[in-house]
Amino acid sequence: MSAPPDLFASRWVELPAHARTVPEGGLAAGFRAAGVACGIKPSGRTDLGVLVCDAPDAVSAARFSRSGALAAPVLLTQERCELGALRAVIANSGNANAATGRQGYEHAAKTQGAAAALLGLDPAQVAIASTGVIGVPLPVERLIAGLRDAGEVLRPDGDADLWAAIRTTDAFEKRVTLDVELSGGTIRISAQAKGAGMISPAFATMLCFVQTDAALAQETAELLLGVTVKRSFDRVSVDGQLSTNDTVVLIASGASAVSVAPESDDELRLGEALDQLLRALAIALVRDGEGSEHVGRVIVRGGDPDGVERAARGVANSPLVKAALHGGDPNWGRIAAAVGQALPGTAPLPFDIAIEGIAVCAAGAALPHDAAALDAAVGGPEVEYEVGLPGEGAETEVFFSDLSHDYVSINAEYTS
Amino acid sequence: MSAPPDLFASRWVELPAHARTVPEGGLAAGFRAAGVACGIKPSGRTDLGVLVCDAPDAVSAARFSRSGALAAPVLLTQERCELGALRAVIANSGNANAATGRQGYEHAAKTQGAAAALLGLDPAQVAIASTGVIGVPLPVERLIAGLRDAGEVLRPDGDADLWAAIRTTDAFEKRVTLDVELSGGTIRISAQAKGAGMISPAFATMLCFVQTDAALAQETAELLLGVTVKRSFDRVSVDGQLSTNDTVVLIASGASAVSVAPESDDELRLGEALDQLLRALAIALVRDGEGSEHVGRVIVRGGDPDGVERAARGVANSPLVKAALHGGDPNWGRIAAAVGQALPGTAPLPFDIAIEGIAVCAAGAALPHDAAALDAAVGGPEVEYEVGLPGEGAETEVFFSDLSHDYVSINAEYTS
Repeated sequence: MSAPPDLFASRWVELPAHARTVPEGGLAAGFRAAGVACGIKPSGRTDLGVLVCDAPDAVSAARFSRSGALAAPVLLTQERCELGALRAVIANSGNANAATGRQGYEHAAKTQGAAAALLGLDPAQVAIASTGVIGVPLPVERLIAGLRDAGEVLRPDGDADLWAAIRTTDAFEKRVTLDVELSGGTIRISAQAKGAGMISPAFATMLCFVQTDAALAQETAELLLGVTVKRSFDRVSVDGQLSTNDTVVLIASGASAVSVAPESDDELRLGEALDQLLRALAIALVRDGEGSEHVGRVIVRGGDPDGVERAARGVANSPLVKAALHGGDPNWGRIAAAVGQALPGTAPLPFDIAIEGIAVCAAGAALPHDAAALDAAVGGPEVEYEVGLPGEGAETEVFFSDLSHDYVSINAEYTS
Repeated sequence: MSAPPDLFASRWVELPAHARTVPEGGLAAGFRAAGVACGIKPSGRTDLGVLVCDAPDAVSAARFSRSGALAAPVLLTQERCELGALRAVIANSGNANAATGRQGYEHAAKTQGAAAALLGLDPAQVAIASTGVIGVPLPVERLIAGLRDAGEVLRPDGDADLWAAIRTTDAFEKRVTLDVELSGGTIRISAQAKGAGMISPAFATMLCFVQTDAALAQETAELLLGVTVKRSFDRVSVDGQLSTNDTVVLIASGASAVSVAPESDDELRLGEALDQLLRALAIALVRDGEGSEHVGRVIVRGGDPDGVERAARGVANSPLVKAALHGGDPNWGRIAAAVGQALPGTAPLPFDIAIEGIAVCAAGAALPHDAAALDAAVGGPEVEYEVGLPGEGAETEVFFSDLSHDYVSINAEYTS
C-alpha cells in the first residue's frame, strides 16, 4: 500500500483556520476501535472492524445508498437500528452480503446480536456495514468468532486497524484526525473512509465512519451530516456506479464536554471543519478510484438546477471525457457531446466551456485558444472544467476520476 | 482493416426466408455512390462520400441524434431539407462540424449548395452528414473540391467507397446488400453504417444510409424506418455516449417498379427484412465498438415499461458489467448493483437474474448454480443476460460491448 498522501493537499480543499490535522491520528475521545482478520478475505488480510462509543448518551446520524438492490446490512441498519442513538458499527470487507435474500438479512441480524451481547449494548445501537463481493453468502460464523477477538483489542488509537478492515481495492489510507477550536475548547473529529470502485450518484460505493467528542444534539448531528454528505460524497464519481452498500455514520460521544448549541457560531465552525474533512475524503476516494491517475472537477452554472445537475453528472460519468482526462487529451468536444446528451432536445444549446480557465467554446461554438497552453493545463494531476449553460442562479460541481487501463484490469480480472 | 465478418452470423439476428444477402454487394437500383479522399483526414484516407438517387420521385425518411449539442450538418439537414424527398447524402469523416457555431452551419450550407449544383438537385434534397473530431472548423474548400472529384466517379457499385468515406475507428466493414422477394418481384436493399465509439441511447454515434429500389409511399418509408430504428440502433450501447451527429437516412428510388402498398403483406415482408438488416448492422456496431471483443445482450422483463428500460440501459452502460464481460467474469453481482442503481428507492426489489439461461439470482437473492457451467458460458463472444422485475407485460433489450484496454487506449491517445 502506498503511503497516505496529504488529503488536504488538493487545491479544492481548504481546512478552516480553526482546524488542524493531528498527524499521529487516533480516534476522538470516547471511542475505541479494532480491526482483525476473521477469514472472510481469502488473502487472510484484516477484514472485520469494530467501532464502539463508550458514552451511553451518544448521538448519531447516518446516510445510505438509495439502490433498489440494497444489501442486507443496509436494510437491517435502516429497519432495526435507532439511527439517532447508534453506539457501535460492525464493518466487514470481502463480502457485501448483498443479493443474499432472507439468509443474508439473518446473517446481518446475527452479527448485530452477537456484537450487542459482546459490547453490552442494545442491538438497535449497533449498525452493520459490509463491502466486497455481491451474491455470496456471508461466512457469519467466522465473523462472529472474529468479533470476540476484536472485542479484546479495542483501543483509542484503533482507527488505523478499523480502516484496514474496511479497505478493498483502496491503494492508500483515507483516514483523518482533526482538532477543531470551538469557543468552549478543542474538540476532535476522526474519520475513516474506503473507496474505490462503484462510486457515484447518491454518494459513492463507500463506507465512512466519523467520530467526534463534541457534545451535540441529535438534530445537530443530523443537520451537519446531511449538509456535508450532500457537498462531498454526493458529488463524486469514479465510474457512475451506485453501490448496494454505501453507508456513512457519524457518532458524537460528547466526551470533550464541549457543547455545540444548535444555530450557534460553534455549530458553524464545526460544520466548516466537517465539510472540508468529508470533501477531502471524497476527493481522496476519486483520486484513489480504481486505476485513477488524475482527478477532474466539473463546475456547471446556469439557470435550471436540474439541467445543471444532469450536465455535471453527464460530463463526470462520460467514459470519453474520463479517457481524455487519462490521456491528457485537451479534447473538449467530448465535454460538448456529454453536455448535449445530458440535455436532449435543446439544440442549438448556447453552452460555454473553459478548461483550467482557458475558454475553448462560447455559445456552442469553438473559440480560438492557445493550444499549447491547453495541452499543458490538461496534463496535471487535477484538471478543472467549467461549463456555462443559459441563465444563472444554479451551480454545482462533480469530482471524477479518469478511465485507465488499470480500471479495466482491476474490473475484468478481479471479482469484486 | 479486418475482413468483414458475416453480419448475419449472430444468433440474435435471423434473416427472413424471403430475403438473401448479395455477397458481391452493390447499391439498390437507381442509386450511385462514390468515396474520395479530399484532405480532411490527415492520413490521406478516403473521407468524403456522395450518395445520389437518380429517380426524381424518390421518397425518404430520416432519424437524428437528439443531443442538445447537435452538429451543424444535423441542424441544417433538419431545418433546410425536405426529409421525405431526399435524393442525395453528402457525408464526410475526419471532422464532425460540431460545436462550430454559425461558421459551421455556413460550411454545411455551402456543402449542400455545392452538391446540389453539381448533382442538378434542389438543395432541400441534399442531406449532409459528418463524423469525426468536434470543435474544429471544417475545411470546406477541400470538401467542395472533393465533391467535384466524387461527382465524376459515381457508380452503382460505389457502396464500398461510400462506406470507406464514413468510417472512423471502425475495424471492419458494415455494409450489406439484400434481395427481398415480394409478391410483385424482387427488390433490393443496400445499407452502409459506421460506428464505433460514442454509441448509445437514442441511437448511437453512427451514420447509416439505406437505399431500396422498392416503390414506397413516403408514409411507408417513415413508418418502416421509424419502427426498425427503434428496434436496432436505439437498442445498442458501446459506451453510453450519445453523439452530436447521429444520422440515419432511408431513400427509396422505386427503380424496381415493385410497389409496396401501405398495410400490405409486402409492407410486412419488407419491414421484416429491413428490421433484421438494421439489427445486424446495429449488433455489428457493438461488436466493432472501440476495443470490443464481446457482445452482451441484456433482456429485461417486468410490469413497468419505464423501469424495464432504465434497468436495461443501466446494465448495458455499467462499466463494471462491461469490464466483467471483457474478462469473462461471471460476476452477476454487478448486474444486481446496476439494476438497483437504475431503480433507486425500491429496495428490497425482488429481481431475478439469469446468464446464458443459468439462473443465478431469484427474488433478489443468490441461487446455487453450476459455477463451472457459468464460467464457460460467459467466456464466449456473445453473452446473454436476462433480468426479471416484478410484474409482466413489458420487455426490452439492449446490446452492449465490453470495456477493454483498447477502448482506453483508443480514447486516451486518439483525439476523435
